Parts: sequence; C-alpha cells; structure tokens
Amino acid sequence: DRPRHQGMAKNTNMRWRLPLVCLLWEVAMIVLFGVFVRFGAEADAHWEEEKREMNLTSDIENDFYFRYPSFQDVHVMIFVGFGFLMTFLKRYGFGAVGFNFLLAAFGIQWALLMQGWFHSFKDGKILIGVENLINADFCVGSVCIAFGAILGKTSPIQLLVMTLFQVTLFSVNEYILLNLLHVKDAGGSMTIHTFGAYFGLTVTRILYRPNLEQSKDKQGSVYHSDLFAMIGTLYLWMYWPSFNSAISDHGDAQHRSAINTYCSLAACVLTTMAFSSMLQKKGKLDMVHIQNATLAGGVAVGTSAEMMLTPYGSLIVGSISGIVSTVGYVYFTPFLESRLHIQDTCGIHNLHAMPGLIGGIVGAITAAAATEDVYGKEGFIKAFDFTGVYQTRTPSIQGGFQAAGIVVSLLMAFVGGAIVGGILKLPIWGDAAAENCFEDGIYWEVPEDEESDAYHMHNPAKPASP
Amino acid sequence: DRPRHQGMAKNTNMRWRLPLVCLLWEVAMIVLFGVFVRFGAEADAHWEEEKREMNLTSDIENDFYFRYPSFQDVHVMIFVGFGFLMTFLKRYGFGAVGFNFLLAAFGIQWALLMQGWFHSFKDGKILIGVENLINADFCVGSVCIAFGAILGKTSPIQLLVMTLFQVTLFSVNEYILLNLLHVKDAGGSMTIHTFGAYFGLTVTRILYRPNLEQSKDKQGSVYHSDLFAMIGTLYLWMYWPSFNSAISDHGDAQHRSAINTYCSLAACVLTTMAFSSMLQKKGKLDMVHIQNATLAGGVAVGTSAEMMLTPYGSLIVGSISGIVSTVGYVYFTPFLESRLHIQDTCGIHNLHAMPGLIGGIVGAITAAAATEDVYGKEGFIKAFDFTGVYQTRTPSIQGGFQAAGIVVSLLMAFVGGAIVGGILKLPIWGDAAAENCFEDGIYWEVPEDEESDAYHMHNPAKPASP
Amino acid sequence: DRPRHQGMAKNTNMRWRLPLVCLLWEVAMIVLFGVFVRFGAEADAHWEEEKREMNLTSDIENDFYFRYPSFQDVHVMIFVGFGFLMTFLKRYGFGAVGFNFLLAAFGIQWALLMQGWFHSFKDGKILIGVENLINADFCVGSVCIAFGAILGKTSPIQLLVMTLFQVTLFSVNEYILLNLLHVKDAGGSMTIHTFGAYFGLTVTRILYRPNLEQSKDKQGSVYHSDLFAMIGTLYLWMYWPSFNSAISDHGDAQHRSAINTYCSLAACVLTTMAFSSMLQKKGKLDMVHIQNATLAGGVAVGTSAEMMLTPYGSLIVGSISGIVSTVGYVYFTPFLESRLHIQDTCGIHNLHAMPGLIGGIVGAITAAAATEDVYGKEGFIKAFDFTGVYQTRTPSIQGGFQAAGIVVSLLMAFVGGAIVGGILKLPIWGDAAAENCFEDGIYWEVPEDEESDAYHMHNPAKPASP
Repeated sequence: DRPRHQGMAKNTNMRWRLPLVCLLWEVAMIVLFGVFVRFGAEADAHWEEEKREMNLTSDIENDFYFRYPSFQDVHVMIFVGFGFLMTFLKRYGFGAVGFNFLLAAFGIQWALLMQGWFHSFKDGKILIGVENLINADFCVGSVCIAFGAILGKTSPIQLLVMTLFQVTLFSVNEYILLNLLHVKDAGGSMTIHTFGAYFGLTVTRILYRPNLEQSKDKQGSVYHSDLFAMIGTLYLWMYWPSFNSAISDHGDAQHRSAINTYCSLAACVLTTMAFSSMLQKKGKLDMVHIQNATLAGGVAVGTSAEMMLTPYGSLIVGSISGIVSTVGYVYFTPFLESRLHIQDTCGIHNLHAMPGLIGGIVGAITAAAATEDVYGKEGFIKAFDFTGVYQTRTPSIQGGFQAAGIVVSLLMAFVGGAIVGGILKLPIWGDAAAENCFEDGIYWEVPEDEESDAYHMHNPAKPASP
Repeated sequence: DRPRHQGMAKNTNMRWRLPLVCLLWEVAMIVLFGVFVRFGAEADAHWEEEKREMNLTSDIENDFYFRYPSFQDVHVMIFVGFGFLMTFLKRYGFGAVGFNFLLAAFGIQWALLMQGWFHSFKDGKILIGVENLINADFCVGSVCIAFGAILGKTSPIQLLVMTLFQVTLFSVNEYILLNLLHVKDAGGSMTIHTFGAYFGLTVTRILYRPNLEQSKDKQGSVYHSDLFAMIGTLYLWMYWPSFNSAISDHGDAQHRSAINTYCSLAACVLTTMAFSSMLQKKGKLDMVHIQNATLAGGVAVGTSAEMMLTPYGSLIVGSISGIVSTVGYVYFTPFLESRLHIQDTCGIHNLHAMPGLIGGIVGAITAAAATEDVYGKEGFIKAFDFTGVYQTRTPSIQGGFQAAGIVVSLLMAFVGGAIVGGILKLPIWGDAAAENCFEDGIYWEVPEDEESDAYHMHNPAKPASP
Repeated sequence: DRPRHQGMAKNTNMRWRLPLVCLLWEVAMIVLFGVFVRFGAEADAHWEEEKREMNLTSDIENDFYFRYPSFQDVHVMIFVGFGFLMTFLKRYGFGAVGFNFLLAAFGIQWALLMQGWFHSFKDGKILIGVENLINADFCVGSVCIAFGAILGKTSPIQLLVMTLFQVTLFSVNEYILLNLLHVKDAGGSMTIHTFGAYFGLTVTRILYRPNLEQSKDKQGSVYHSDLFAMIGTLYLWMYWPSFNSAISDHGDAQHRSAINTYCSLAACVLTTMAFSSMLQKKGKLDMVHIQNATLAGGVAVGTSAEMMLTPYGSLIVGSISGIVSTVGYVYFTPFLESRLHIQDTCGIHNLHAMPGLIGGIVGAITAAAATEDVYGKEGFIKAFDFTGVYQTRTPSIQGGFQAAGIVVSLLMAFVGGAIVGGILKLPIWGDAAAENCFEDGIYWEVPEDEESDAYHMHNPAKPASP
C-alpha cells in the first residue's frame, strides 16, 4: 500500500534541517542547564566543608574514586562499544559510529536533566556528580540499542527525535521501577535492555519498509568491517563487568557485580561458539553470532549481578543466554522479518530483548530466593534497601515487584515505541529511499575512490523495484 | 626560490642516521636517569615509614590510587588517541601511528627529566611518581599536536629532533606559567594546546613546501582509513574528562573537572554536526569535522574545567568551540595554506590553536569572576592556591596573570617554533621530496600487494614538477 | 615421513566436534563452580561484618578499589591486546581475534578453578575476588602467547584442548614457583612469558608441518591488517604497567611496578626502531618489529618491576630487550624454522621467550642485590615476604631461588609442551591441510565478496605439493 517508487520524491538533504535541530536543542540544553543543573556536594568547591560535616577523613572517600574508573569503562561501551559494533555493514561505517556519536552526545545532556529531575532534584536544582554521568550514559545505552534495530534506515534527524522521546520515556519508566516499585536493576536488564530493545523493535515495526530488499546487497559485511565490529564487541564484553557494577553500592556489591558478570560472559562465549557452529551445515562459525550473542551473558545478569547470584549461577545464566541469543539469530530474526514485518538490522531482539527478559526473570527469582542466611542480617537489608517504608517487604514480595518491573518496561516500550514510531513516520525528517538504505553516501561525504557505485540515485526512467 | 627538482637528490635512507639518533639519545637518557631519577616517597620501598610520618592509615591514600586510572586514560589518548586520529591519510597509517609511537616514547623520557628538574628536584635527585608520568604524557601531547601540522612531510629523525627541543621549550614555558605567573592550567589549554599548536604551525610554516600539490592524491582518506581515525577521535573524546582532571587537586577538583569536560564535549558534538552539515552544499556531514572539531570542547575547557565553570558554562564553551573549529576547517585552513603558506595537515589550527586560545581566555574570565561566595572560603583559597606569597592575590589579578600566560605561551611557540623550524630545515635529516610526502613506502616496509603504485621513485628523465 | 597429500583426507568440519567440546566443558565448569566456587569475603554480602572484624572504616578499603582499574586494563590486554596483535595476517583476522576470544573465555573459567584450588581454597571452597580474576587473566595470557606460535595452523578444538592442559600446567608451575620456591614474579616473566612461550614453541615443534610453504602467500600482512595489529600492540604497550603492577602489594609496590614498566617500555621503543632500521638494507622500518619488539620491555621487567629496579635500571633492561627481540625477528626466527623446524607464526620466541628469560635473570639479580639500606628495614621484609619460615632467607639465596624458578619453568614448558603437542597431533581434532593454513574460510563464514580465491579446495587430480 506504500507507493511503489517511494524513493523518487525523497529529499535527504540535511542542510538546514539537521543544523536547525542540533542548534535548537543545544540552546535548549544550555538554558535548562543554566536554570537547573549545579555541581553536587562532592564536585563543588565547598567540598572541604562537606567533608567535615560528613566526618570524612580523606579525599579518597569522594564518590569520584569509587565510580570514576567504572564510569570511563561505561563511556567507552557507549561510544566505542555500540559505535563500532554497528560498523559491520560494508557501506555504513560512518553512519554507525557517527550517528551513534551524535545521538549519544545529545542524549546524555537530556538524560542528565530528565534523570536529574526524578532523582537528584533538591531545592529547585539538579545536583550532579559522577553517578549522574554514569546514569546518563546508561540511559543513552537504551537509545543505542534501539538504534541497532533501525540502523541504516533513518536520517540523523529521526535519530535525534527518537533520542529526545526515548530518553524521556526511559526516565519515566526508570522512575516507576526504581522509586515506585522499589525494584533493583543496577545493570539495567529491564530499564535499559528490555525497554530499549522492545522500544526499538516497535519503532522499526512502525517504520516497516516493504521494499528493503532493494538494498539487500548493502546489508552484508566485508572482511574488514567485521573486524571493526569486533572492536565494538570486545569493548562491550570486557567492560560489561564495569557496566553492571557501576552504580551498585560501594564495597561488596560493586565487587560482586563485577565477578558475576565476568563469569556469565565467559560462559556465554562457549555456548555461542557451540551453537554458531552447530547450526551451520558445514559447522563454520558466523561472525554475526560471535559479534553479538557473546554479549548476551552481560545483559542477562544485569539485574541479578549485584545479588548473591553466585559464580556458578552466573555461568548457568550466561550459558543459557548465549544459546538463546544464537538460536535467535538463526531462526527468530528471519521469522520476525518475514512474518511480523520487524526489520531488525542488528538483531537487537537476540542480543538485548530476549536476554533482557531473561535478566529480569533471573533477577526476580534471585530476589525471591534471598535469605538472611545467605546475605547476613545487615547485608540482606542493604542489598534490597529494605528500609523505611520497605522495611517489611519480604523476598518473595520483592520478587513479585521485580516481575512487575518487567511488565511495566514492556508496556512502556510498546506504547512509547508505537507513538514515537508514528512521529518518525512523518515525511519531514529526510529519511532515505529503500534502495539507498545502509549507504553512507546519502548523509556523508564519502572518499572519492569509493564513491563510484556507492549508491544508486533514483532514475525515474527505470523503476527501482522491478 | 627552492630548487625545482627538490626531490631528485633527496636521500631518505634512514639506515645509519635513525639508529644513531635513537641509540645516542637512549644512552643519554640512561645516563641522565642514572644520575638524577629516583622513586618518589610513594613509590619507594620506604613507603611504610613515610606513611607513619604522614599519619596515613591506609595504603589507599597513596597518590597512585587517586591518579592511576586517569593516568592510563591519558596514556591511551597519547598513543592510541593521537596515533589513530592521524591514520586518516590513505597511505600514511604506519607513519601516523608508528612515528607518533616513536616520538612519544622518546618524549616521555626526556619530559620526565625536564619537568623533573623544574618541579620534582630535591637534594640533587628527581623524585618521580604517578603524577610525573601524567605530566610527561601531557608534555608529549603538545608534541603530538605539533606533529599533526607536519604529518607526512618529515622524516622520523626530524620528529625526534623536534621532540627534543619542543619538550625542552614546553617545560620552560610551563615553569614560567605555573611557577612564576602562578597560573592555573590543569588541562593545559595554554601550556599544551596553545603552545603545541602554534609551535607546530610555525614549524610547518618554516618548512613550507611549494610543490606539495604533487602529492595531492595522497592527502585524502579512504573509507577504512576514516574509520581507523574514528578510533582515535573517540578515545580522545571519551577520555578527555580524565585528561583535564588528571592532575587537579584530590577530591572535588578532580570530580568537577571531569564533569565540566564531559558537558563541554557533549555540546561540542552537536554544534560540530550542525555546522558540518550547514557548510556543505548538499548538507552532508564531513568526516574531517567529526573526527576533529568534536574534540574542541575538551581543549576549550582545559584551563577552566577545575574551576567553578558550572555545567551550563561548559555547554556554552563547548558549543562555541565546536562552531569555531568547524568553521576553521572550512574557511581558515585553505586560507592559511594559500595566503600564509602554512600547510597544516591535520588542521591543528582548528582543533588545538583556536580552541586553546578560547580555553585560555575562558580560564582567565572564570578566574577573574571567582568569589568566596561561589567557592566557599576554603575552597576559594584551595582552588587558586592563594597561599604563601600569593595570599593577597585577588581574582581579577589572577585573571590578568592567566591572560599573561596566553601571551607568554604564544611568544614561546612562535620564537621556539621559528628556531626549531630553522634547524629542521637543514638538509641532513632525510625528509622526502614533495612528491613522496604522505607515503609510508619511503620509511616503512609496506606489504607487497599494495606497494605497486605506492610511491613514485624520482625519474631524472621526467621532471617531477611539470 | 608424513604423507605427501596430507591435506586430501583432512576433515575440518567442526559441526559436531566443536559444539560437543564447548558444551561438555561448559557443563563441567558449571558443576565444578557449583561445588567449589564462592564469593570471597570482600565480594560477599557479609562484607559489613567482615569490615568490622578487620577494623576497616571505609568501603574504599575493599580490595576492589585497589585492583579493579588494573584488572580492567589486563582484561583489555588479553582480549583486545593479544586478539588484535594477531590480526596482522591478511586472511586470518577472524581466527586471530575469534579463537583468542574462545580460548581465553574458556581458560579464565578453568584458571579460576585451578589457581583457586592452589591458592584460595578454604574449608572446601574456592573463595574468589578481583585478584582471582586478574590471576585467571594472567594464566590465560600464557595460553594466548602459546597460541601465537601455532596461529593459523590449528583447529579451534586443538586450541581448547591445549588451553585445558596449559592452564593446568601453568597452575602447577606457578604453585611450585610462588609457594614452594617462594619466588617473586608479579608480572610473570617466568610463570607467564617464559613458560607460555617455550610451551608454545615446543607444541609447534611437535606439530611441525613440512609443507607449510604451500600457504606462504597467506603468511603475510596487508596494509590494513597491519593497522589492526597496531591496535593490539598499543593496548598491550599502554596497559603493561597495569599488568606488571596488578597483583603487587598495595601501595608503593603497585606504584613502583607501574613506573618501572613505563620506563622500560619507553626505552624499548627506541632501541627497537633503531635496530629495525639498521638491519634492513634500505633502512626502512618493519611493522613486524614495531608491532612486537616494542613490547619486549614489558616482558623483561615482569619479575623485577615491583623491586627497587630503579627507573634507570628499567631503561637499561628495556633497551636491551628491544635489541634482543628485534635481532631475534631478523636472524633467529628464520633459523628456528629452517634448522630446528620450529614454525613460530608470531615470533613469540622473540617477544616472550627471550625477553622472559631476561626478565627472570634480571629479577634474580635484582633480588640478590637487595639491601636493607635500599628498601628500608620494613620494606625489605615486605618486598620479599621474608616472614615465617622465610625469615632467615638472604637476598643472595632469594636470587638463587629466583634462578631456580627459571629452570623449573623451562622444564615444565618443554615436558608439558611435548606431551600436549603429542596429544594435539592425534588426527581427530580437525586441523587444516598445509595449503589451507592461515585461512579464515576453513572455520569461518567469510563475507562473499572476498571468499573468491580465498582458499584452495584440495583437488585430488592435482598433487598439492609439486
């Protein structure tokens, strides 16, 4: 029912639209930061006084030293990890790493505000410190995930619009989960992965392109683009222990999160390799699986890593998620595309959606199974923040709320994704025709040598789809 | 006035010259280190006694734990950041990353000595610790910047000679600024960027090559070389908060520097994208801008990041520097080359020189605007070290000295660059002919497959310049 | 004496074998972890009680904060460092980075168990924390080294089998050195490099392939594969200070190790460049040397970095190791291949074996030369753990034991390597024929564009070796 020559009239010239959006939004950020954002006590020059008040004897007690190394690792995951993971496409490396850069740079500013209003608002000001930077990166992580579903099929303006809305919805969802449901989700299996992935999948469903096979030849990789993508994979894989532990409580919780994640990821690599080989006729390994499914183990312990999941529990979760994810790439992705019209460029359904759900469920179970014996009396209360109004919450009730968190995240993702997808479908954002998808030449100056046969200008005399 | 066939007689064989310089200088380093360099108290085996004397209760108070993570980030910026940023040239990837490696490895040794004599000299010995390593990396950063201007046009020996002199001059300039003018410049807007960039621009002016258009075809990028360069860009961008906070005071100052830099860089990406698109006829983004101008925000808060610049102040500075830098690439670089004969391969004028000046000015203004109200009584004194003989210095006087620091850095850069440029112009260093610039095959064994048509051996029968 | 058409009957199909091995071993890991592995006190939820017992006043005293940044650096070295270092081959990038990923992910799990039984076993349980993660990475590092010798010539199953045995032998050797001989080897010159390299060299000797020249054309690099390899080189180089200091004692020892390693590596770059240029007729630099020999300085201070080697001592050691390593690439590697039938793909003899021996010897000398004057009374005892039954050990005796550690490591490597090599020679593991070595297409799905002429299917009508 879409016009056959959809590409014909497409105007992808960004000259005024993109600058306008970028500059307008940056000005908005400056104004809002000017009104609202100030340094938190640990980053403010009044720190010496604060130290005395809090009875701290050393500067090393500043939260900076507890979290900054983890922050930097997370930062690398967002910009190099996600950015390069998506460079696997032969002709979309600039777009992958460049647009990821753009949306994340905008997203972290907006996330500082949105999350700040919900969590760090005091006397009319948002007070920020290193933990806010991590949370902003986390929030943007969910946008990078959604970007994976629509990679190559959207204009930079669409990405900025999506970022604006998704960061907003993310923050609302996060507030409901963490503050209203009092759910634990330090590594974001629910808030980041489940929400981000189903949001992105819904958006790409709404933006369904029936003629996408016109750019089939550009949807693959070349040898070196696969190696570039491995840079992204490895940085995500290596730093995921930092991701899952970055905002956990000081001390044992951070330590434990890192260990659990390390174990889960290690196991995930072996089951991914096993199934990648097993599901191919000639038993050859597929780089798509190695680049993606090896990471499912990090997603799947996102909620439970800071709990007493135990190292063998992590191995089990990691093993299962590697299998689920690899099987997903082989069987589910083609099914989603052909039957449900969900065109998922990077396979985020396999890497984030399903493992995210596993993560939420494992988290609920682990919480429900918690005992004072395992955690110690103090550790039990500290691990689940069973203080104040939550003093009487039992593990099984906590498990129920954790499960509710999954449902809420899914609902927010579906409803939010549908609305935002509808907005992105407006014909004003400059997205490319189907035959020009997955092609850097549309939005980027591409080095001349390779611009030859780089993309197909629509020739009205020759119908694009036969 | 230079001979037309300048390339004809050029001897680029490094066989004895390069080894001689490398070995001679390494021996000199060993001798000087032997005479002067020892471990500082926190790295010496007498640390247990030191701890007691300083009343420290825990090993975690060792400066190592305050600064080592930042040091490693800075280290990555110098070697991977600068190294890969410069791999954008299609035929000069080995030279970019390899020569950067060489000059930085030599430079950090010499910088440990030079800066050590000025700042860590006690009882005839230079006592080093992790902060010295950071400062050595910083110093070498200014050489990497200058290298960007002459990239592809110099021999490795010239680079080593330049490093020797530039590190020396850097250290003198740094001493004047930090110790004599009592200027604050933790992220080095003045000492590293302004000095390094104008030094490099002066050197490349002196080394002007009138026939450089003979290697025009090699001055561009190819698709994958642009992706390699993005590795450099992203690591510089992500770790810049560590750069600007690495040697700030423990506690709030490090924390604040990181936040300000994070904000500035985020804003810079948006304005860079906006102007990159706006200044192209078809609105397409240019990888040169994305690779470079997005980093200007880090340079431009180098001086003020540890001050109470505030997050919105950082957004403003970052936004402006992104615009200035992108405009510079489009308009200033061609102007500098055609009118002023400044051939600036990487456009360091746009990435380091102008943003460095902005950084110095913003620092002077921020210092001049400081009040006890904003910083707190103690914080005010601590932030600007208004102790001892500087006890009576007022913010406005400090602002004046900050401004003087810019002027001194510029003078040192121009005078030093002119002298060093003159030295590098001597015909003994083995630089290549104009038609062989930007070509790895001159100084590197290049894999055979690609050596075909890799570079042009001068054919006396056929004049090189028509 | 091997059959001439060795390739003919080779079955490289991994479809059932690889999945079987991966899944079987992962199940074994899960069972063993379930029985044995638990969180150590600092990662367990009982930490609050532990803190009180140990009289710690702050969470920052948790070992996590002393070691986690170094752990992450080491982690990057194992997966990106070794992985990408080996991508230099033009057609074996997937195998280099992918198989390294596989073997390391398995290896760290098995190492957690093996090392745990030897060093962290308490009341029937292995109690793990961040130091165990580092040690597991270290152990796997020795496998990555051995992988370098056989790169391109083995099937993934062979690599998994080798990893199983090598991790076991590593742990035994490490136990003998650290616990029985009471040897210091924080950076692993002996346990990691000497053992790993001679083990790998022995294995590759046993697996000698007389017809390997059939794949000569694939043993080289292409321009971009050399740049990918430089990513590995630089991350190894930059993070080596973290490697050598990661498990040193808190405080001065970690601090000192980092400084010594930094100095040694810097010097090594200069002598490598010098000799690389000197040993080529035209004085051109060779990327093989720059990629590898520049790292020898890190290997060669692995034992002594935490001792009072002093910065100038480090420069001397680094300088020498760069020379030895570069000379090794030019003269020893061809000799080893032609005379001793040791086919060493990555030249680990030059990068790890010889520098590892140097490191062991330097460590022995530095230990033997230790005095209470240099270390301080307390520092002396702490540096060498001269407590308990070792209370009466003198420096010269310690030096003797250090030297014994080298001999033991060598013996373990030769004997172990011979046995494991024999096992790997069984014709059941699916290794490729000589003409298909160094070729990703055997075990990987390779993007179509490049699969053409990617590898040679054996044609029975045409003998493979003329």
